[in-house]
Amino acid sequence: MNQLGVVKRHVTRADRATIDLLGKLGSATVHEAMGRVGLLKPYMRPIWPGAQVSGSAVTVLLHPGDNWMMHVVAEQIQPGDIVVAAISAECGDGYFGDLLATSFMARGAHALVIDAGVRDVRVLKEMGFPVWSKCISAKGTIKATLGSVNIPVLCAGALVNPGDVIVADDDGVAVVPGQDAGRVAHVAEQRESLEEEKRARLAAGVLGLDMYDMRGPLEKAGLRYID
Amino acid sequence: MNQLGVVKRHVTRADRATIDLLGKLGSATVHEAMGRVGLLKPYMRPIWPGAQVSGSAVTVLLHPGDNWMMHVVAEQIQPGDIVVAAISAECGDGYFGDLLATSFMARGAHALVIDAGVRDVRVLKEMGFPVWSKCISAKGTIKATLGSVNIPVLCAGALVNPGDVIVADDDGVAVVPGQDAGRVAHVAEQRESLEEEKRARLAAGVLGLDMYDMRGPLEKAGLRYID
Amino acid sequence: MNQLGVVKRHVTRADRATIDLLGKLGSATVHEAMGRVGLLKPYMRPIWPGAQVSGSAVTVLLHPGDNWMMHVVAEQIQPGDIVVAAISAECGDGYFGDLLATSFMARGAHALVIDAGVRDVRVLKEMGFPVWSKCISAKGTIKATLGSVNIPVLCAGALVNPGDVIVADDDGVAVVPGQDAGRVAHVAEQRESLEEEKRARLAAGVLGLDMYDMRGPLEKAGLRYID
Amino acid sequence: MNQLGVVKRHVTRADRATIDLLGKLGSATVHEAMGRVGLLKPYMRPIWPGAQVSGSAVTVLLHPGDNWMMHVVAEQIQPGDIVVAAISAECGDGYFGDLLATSFMARGAHALVIDAGVRDVRVLKEMGFPVWSKCISAKGTIKATLGSVNIPVLCAGALVNPGDVIVADDDGVAVVPGQDAGRVAHVAEQRESLEEEKRARLAAGVLGLDMYDMRGPLEKAGLRYID
Amino acid sequence: MNQLGVVKRHVTRADRATIDLLGKLGSATVHEAMGRVGLLKPYMRPIWPGAQVSGSAVTVLLHPGDNWMMHVVAEQIQPGDIVVAAISAECGDGYFGDLLATSFMARGAHALVIDAGVRDVRVLKEMGFPVWSKCISAKGTIKATLGSVNIPVLCAGALVNPGDVIVADDDGVAVVPGQDAGRVAHVAEQRESLEEEKRARLAAGVLGLDMYDMRGPLEKAGLRYID
Amino acid sequence: MNQLGVVKRHVTRADRATIDLLGKLGSATVHEAMGRVGLLKPYMRPIWPGAQVSGSAVTVLLHPGDNWMMHVVAEQIQPGDIVVAAISAECGDGYFGDLLATSFMARGAHALVIDAGVRDVRVLKEMGFPVWSKCISAKGTIKATLGSVNIPVLCAGALVNPGDVIVADDDGVAVVPGQDAGRVAHVAEQRESLEEEKRARLAAGVLGLDMYDMRGPLEKAGLRYID
Repeated sequence: MNQLGVVKRHVTRADRATIDLLGKLGSATVHEAMGRVGLLKPYMRPIWPGAQVSGSAVTVLLHPGDNWMMHVVAEQIQPGDIVVAAISAECGDGYFGDLLATSFMARGAHALVIDAGVRDVRVLKEMGFPVWSKCISAKGTIKATLGSVNIPVLCAGALVNPGDVIVADDDGVAVVPGQDAGRVAHVAEQRESLEEEKRARLAAGVLGLDMYDMRGPLEKAGLRYID
Repeated sequence: MNQLGVVKRHVTRADRATIDLLGKLGSATVHEAMGRVGLLKPYMRPIWPGAQVSGSAVTVLLHPGDNWMMHVVAEQIQPGDIVVAAISAECGDGYFGDLLATSFMARGAHALVIDAGVRDVRVLKEMGFPVWSKCISAKGTIKATLGSVNIPVLCAGALVNPGDVIVADDDGVAVVPGQDAGRVAHVAEQRESLEEEKRARLAAGVLGLDMYDMRGPLEKAGLRYID
Repeated sequence: MNQLGVVKRHVTRADRATIDLLGKLGSATVHEAMGRVGLLKPYMRPIWPGAQVSGSAVTVLLHPGDNWMMHVVAEQIQPGDIVVAAISAECGDGYFGDLLATSFMARGAHALVIDAGVRDVRVLKEMGFPVWSKCISAKGTIKATLGSVNIPVLCAGALVNPGDVIVADDDGVAVVPGQDAGRVAHVAEQRESLEEEKRARLAAGVLGLDMYDMRGPLEKAGLRYID
Repeated sequence: MNQLGVVKRHVTRADRATIDLLGKLGSATVHEAMGRVGLLKPYMRPIWPGAQVSGSAVTVLLHPGDNWMMHVVAEQIQPGDIVVAAISAECGDGYFGDLLATSFMARGAHALVIDAGVRDVRVLKEMGFPVWSKCISAKGTIKATLGSVNIPVLCAGALVNPGDVIVADDDGVAVVPGQDAGRVAHVAEQRESLEEEKRARLAAGVLGLDMYDMRGPLEKAGLRYID
Repeated sequence: MNQLGVVKRHVTRADRATIDLLGKLGSATVHEAMGRVGLLKPYMRPIWPGAQVSGSAVTVLLHPGDNWMMHVVAEQIQPGDIVVAAISAECGDGYFGDLLATSFMARGAHALVIDAGVRDVRVLKEMGFPVWSKCISAKGTIKATLGSVNIPVLCAGALVNPGDVIVADDDGVAVVPGQDAGRVAHVAEQRESLEEEKRARLAAGVLGLDMYDMRGPLEKAGLRYID
Repeated sequence: MNQLGVVKRHVTRADRATIDLLGKLGSATVHEAMGRVGLLKPYMRPIWPGAQVSGSAVTVLLHPGDNWMMHVVAEQIQPGDIVVAAISAECGDGYFGDLLATSFMARGAHALVIDAGVRDVRVLKEMGFPVWSKCISAKGTIKATLGSVNIPVLCAGALVNPGDVIVADDDGVAVVPGQDAGRVAHVAEQRESLEEEKRARLAAGVLGLDMYDMRGPLEKAGLRYID
């Protein structure tokens, strides 16, 4: 996990239809379908609200205060990819701004997920380029130290392999192992299809207590009603 | 405060006119009227900006990673209530999403205040259901352990009794003891009525130094002007 | 830095054209032009997004839970100034609300930068008054203890002298020493002018690797490409 | 909970034998006996290791940066009491040092539990006076604002009533409601007596898996062993 | 990484001489020998100072507030192992106390590394059982949910595979991939042997500036001396 | 404050008797004598308890993850100095270990105060070299970027000029401006001399309420006693 100075050019990506379906289902549904795992820590927040994206992970490991490898990873982006950037130690500097976003968009990137800071956030919002980050900081970086591209990285508490499917929205960021994408999408879709009907019944005033047959189990567990 | 597995059905609520008045005055004015007390900690933030609500507290005590009692509390909601959810230990999971919000809205809930995380926040915003929470997280919960409903709870550093009046807006969340609601609303209203005139004078360029007759006290306290 | 109970009336301000130019360039470009220094810590966030302002610093040192000196500093504001408020110890109370904002706007203030909390944030947004703060809190303050106005202050990890130029936007807050404002604006402008052309080339698909001639240095540093 | 400027002189204390027994059992065993509740948040740490104390709570509510009421509460201390100090807002100042400790010890106090900072910690250790606090800070306080003594307070996330039994050691601080002290001590003692035998068996190499008959439930829950 | 309910019995361990050598060299030297990688986050602290240990990782994945799998992992411990415990979500409860420590010691465990809380810390110190943890908490846990044993885990920001060599001391915790242990020990030993001579020269008053021949590079980088 | 690549050789130091006196009085008394200012933030903690030191500040500004200038500052140390190290951005790496401590001690340094991490802490304790730091981390640093020596620095929220007197103990770190050292020592000594008598009276059971004549002011402020 710690090879430095390596760029792996070949990434095995899941098929686009599966990736799009996972993106439509959203991070909450997808992580439930995986058994309530696969989420980055909740400190990762979108820099502007409302975006909901998915893509194949192209990973990059950077060093504190140094964004040199951002230019190296740019070349490895294929249309629909999401760059996942990890830092070798805690850092809140602004690694990414409107120039890099212009380059990433030109390469077809769908988003950036970075366990550090970004800047030019007003412009990034105007450009419609979504970013999930640890913080926002105007602090610039230097270009001096090698990192690596497309190695497995630990980003915000999750292991991300190149080619994993990233699903990101206002609720957070989920990572689906590339080889599981199809199965997870299938389970998540089934889960979602059940929700439509439930939503209608709850809106009509049916209680979850009744819809999910919880009254028996609650009583059995010892729940008492008093006045 | 720690009875587990109890649902108290009866809650004494303040009268609606008082509750509405407190909501209109807002959390800052209301907590001032109580003597600068009664606020939840400022880490409690709205998931979307602009909502300003008030209601009678219906309380629920949950356990880490377990939202079973959310369905139990739903049945106890009366129109205009605000659910106040406390957790028995620190937890940032997403206890509440669009399905529960649909159910809460069908019951007439005005809002949710929860010392944990919520999810489906983009949809909650579209539905217009306001939530004040500690964080946002896609992480789901299980339904396995009993908690209690309508017992006194400690939520984000404040003691909330069922029937207390909750006032929540972009500045935070205030709790008014149910039996004090009338008196506090009266004091808060008087305070507010004085602000209108002050605002006009300040807008016209009058300094607070003069409007509040501060120059004498400041000089007496030793303030010196130099060039 | 710790004179208490002193108000310095005279502040040497940079010329307005320079201040405006720095504001237009933004906090990220300006701090780069100073050699990647001069930023307040990134926990200082705007209470509403989109504002981009600049002005001469009028400073105030307050005490925990006490905003008395806010009224004293109001009198020292000249049109186009930005008030920079430091607290003598950590405090998250709401020192500033719509009444003080009304007064500050009547004096011509462009913004407030405060290493503490503010309240009435919905109204402040409606008024269009920008604030960068550590947090938002409905908690009120008292008026009992003297602080000072227009002394050097330590605000969010940066030294701010009265008359320094403050540049604040969605990326954060930069402080330019008053006597350096002209030189920094010049350097920042040159930096910015180079970015336009770069942006166009990156948008056309040119890689930073080629535009910045990075391939040689990367290879020399030992970067290896594998499949 | 928010009466200001009140000193309640009369506190109903549990009997000393019960208090001593709870202290000997320790915070972990006591909170288990209460059903895993009743702990202050774990950020409350002893300023020196090794102390294990218990006593009746004498409570005091102070304001940020103001320790005036510490002198008022001193007079209400009876031998064997523990002072529990809450602050009306977050504050890390050093409210308590060697002079107050001298006074508290002269009154027979067993310890201080404070949701803020203390100082003179080297001397406090030499004096053998135990303190559980949020932090250590040399920052002094003023004496200007009334608080209250022996009202219910919220301290580090727990509700403490005067007369509650406080149990504090290296693991943290537990609060036992005064009227439950006898029952809790009884349950905790039984729990503890079972542990001695378990300890001997575990030390002899018996596995918890066998001692607690967990193999069946684990298998039933689906645990699989692979090589 | 997320298989639940699996216990892998077979772990490939490095040879004991290598493990002991790594332990003697310490976490700082070992992580330098790996290229400044392989450390758990610095919030992981020893519960008592002075221990310096090494061992083969036996891993366990637990759930928030649930320590059932601690008993399952106990059976997989071989003499000289270190248990590395990860939690599937953030939790600060006290998962481990003197009873489990008695069992772990009976199995020959050298230490516990846990990304959560522990309790009975005074007794653990008396027993001489070292623990590196996120926090200390008297809060107990339940035994209800399956996790896994000897799967790869993410613990405090590091990936730990069963059989990796753990090196822990007052500076923190380092993880050496099992298959690299020999090579890393060799590099670390060489590094350490150079330090003895350096230490003697520095103690004699030789400056690092001269010992490392830094004056030329510093001057070349532009360092200026002024009076 | 941001000159990079400059080493100022000449530092004006206060006289040693004054520095020693300030050290004996301790950080709490000294900061009170300055008017309750001059403290570094309380997150700065000693790596081992019990040290109480004072000395003239020799300052160094370093960059994240780079300790090159530590060797440059070593040459500027005179016997009795304390090195104050600031970092140009937040960083928790271990900048300082036993080799540098050996060099600093050979130069006569009394201590290190650093707004970052240190390592080899067990050895530093054995050597008796005191350090106040933000954290402890085994993470090493590189030697690549110029900083400056003996310029004014912002360290843990305080402005430190070379030649300022640093007073550090278990309560924290205080900074006395060099030119004020004599006056502050005088005031602090008077303050301390009064404490001896107070301590004796409090130990004899006299209440602060009576010793400080607080009963009248408390009653006037509205304090009420109830039963």
